[in-house]
Amino acid sequence: MLELFLIGIGTGNPDHITREAENAILGADLVLLPHKEDNKAELAQVRLALLQHLGVGGYKVAHFDMPLRRQTGDDYDNQVDEWHDAIARRWQASLAAHLPSGTGRVALLVWGDPALYDSTLRIASRLGLPPAQVRVVPGITSMQVLCSAHGIALNEIGAPFLVTTGRQLRDHGWPAGVDTLIVMLDGQRSYEQVSEQDVEIYWGAYLGMAQQILLRGRLADVAAQISARRAQARQAHGWIMDIYLLRRSGRR
Amino acid sequence: MLELFLIGIGTGNPDHITREAENAILGADLVLLPHKEDNKAELAQVRLALLQHLGVGGYKVAHFDMPLRRQTGDDYDNQVDEWHDAIARRWQASLAAHLPSGTGRVALLVWGDPALYDSTLRIASRLGLPPAQVRVVPGITSMQVLCSAHGIALNEIGAPFLVTTGRQLRDHGWPAGVDTLIVMLDGQRSYEQVSEQDVEIYWGAYLGMAQQILLRGRLADVAAQISARRAQARQAHGWIMDIYLLRRSGRR
Repeated sequence: MLELFLIGIGTGNPDHITREAENAILGADLVLLPHKEDNKAELAQVRLALLQHLGVGGYKVAHFDMPLRRQTGDDYDNQVDEWHDAIARRWQASLAAHLPSGTGRVALLVWGDPALYDSTLRIASRLGLPPAQVRVVPGITSMQVLCSAHGIALNEIGAPFLVTTGRQLRDHGWPAGVDTLIVMLDGQRSYEQVSEQDVEIYWGAYLGMAQQILLRGRLADVAAQISARRAQARQAHGWIMDIYLLRRSGRR
Repeated sequence: MLELFLIGIGTGNPDHITREAENAILGADLVLLPHKEDNKAELAQVRLALLQHLGVGGYKVAHFDMPLRRQTGDDYDNQVDEWHDAIARRWQASLAAHLPSGTGRVALLVWGDPALYDSTLRIASRLGLPPAQVRVVPGITSMQVLCSAHGIALNEIGAPFLVTTGRQLRDHGWPAGVDTLIVMLDGQRSYEQVSEQDVEIYWGAYLGMAQQILLRGRLADVAAQISARRAQARQAHGWIMDIYLLRRSGRR
């Protein structure tokens, strides 16, 4: 029997890992480790360092190259579908090579939590395994580390908050009925386009890592500073992962 | 110098605790443990069992009784304010008794994550400590354990989701512009009042604990079953903590 463990590893800080995640990693017969053809080699290194830190032998790690997503055409949903199919085929090739008996525990390390803006569950569903053989281990998400680092609450008392993406914020503006937004997956500095007055921003990049950066303040006052710092850091590291919370002022 | 650690301990399952949380608990000179005058004694027991599990000596634990919130009048915000003040005074009395030098590391164990629908940060702010002396340690939240247990993603691809409360759902109905809701703090089965057609519900109670219950299905088909199971479990245990995700059907 094949068991697939999708394991949230938090933000790259080994201290953010749970015991459940640690046990799942240590109990795995094989760890599938993706490599990307971009400037994020540092991220693969963080995962490798985590495995080393936990004492996982290198012989248990199966490296594979992530396929590229077709970026031509305006059929975004199809592109994503094809891409997930292609990734699932890489997994299967890797499993066939390393677990030819088709039996064993396979671990995939997921940044943050597999439930949050991550494709691993959807790719896993393509393997046709019964649900009981796919196990999800929650991990600390970047929105939690953001709030922890700034010492703030996600929500105002009894109030809702919306978790959304940079694209949604650009396309639809500030949503109705909510004073707090968490914006993820924003490669395009969408906060610059927020026209609301009196909004506070709590921004963080490389959360949980040694190079963590935090900035906060009234959006109108600090937006330019965040963009400059962001560009500089991205240049220096070759990549950036950031997230922010926006809150109408005077709410807490 | 006094340092206050607000530590997310997840859902009561010791395996959900992070290394950071474990280290913060083990490094504390004092753990403040609240007791409530209601049927939730079992919850204090879970925290005590966790401390024991981690090897924290009983002499480090300061027990205190939670004050009651005034429930008369329609000034809810004032009631909460007064109540937080009263809790802060209990903390201070406990600190004066157990750490008379005013120096040391104090830990408070918070269900889930201190950033999410929890008052500990707001109570801590009443102690007048400099921000650097209040440290927040993120923990796995019930919404993550809910998704992990059901094997589902929080969000549809690239789409937002709203985290809200039972009261908000009752008072304002299904919010505009979002197909996925996480509903917390719902003691009143507000899902029964959702009039939307074709909504899926993923419900969980006592998440991460031995008595965990999961139900899912088309809301119109399973709402009554959930309410019955909920009443039965609440009766049996004397308390219940539950949470659910609602998603318009056909989205994933």
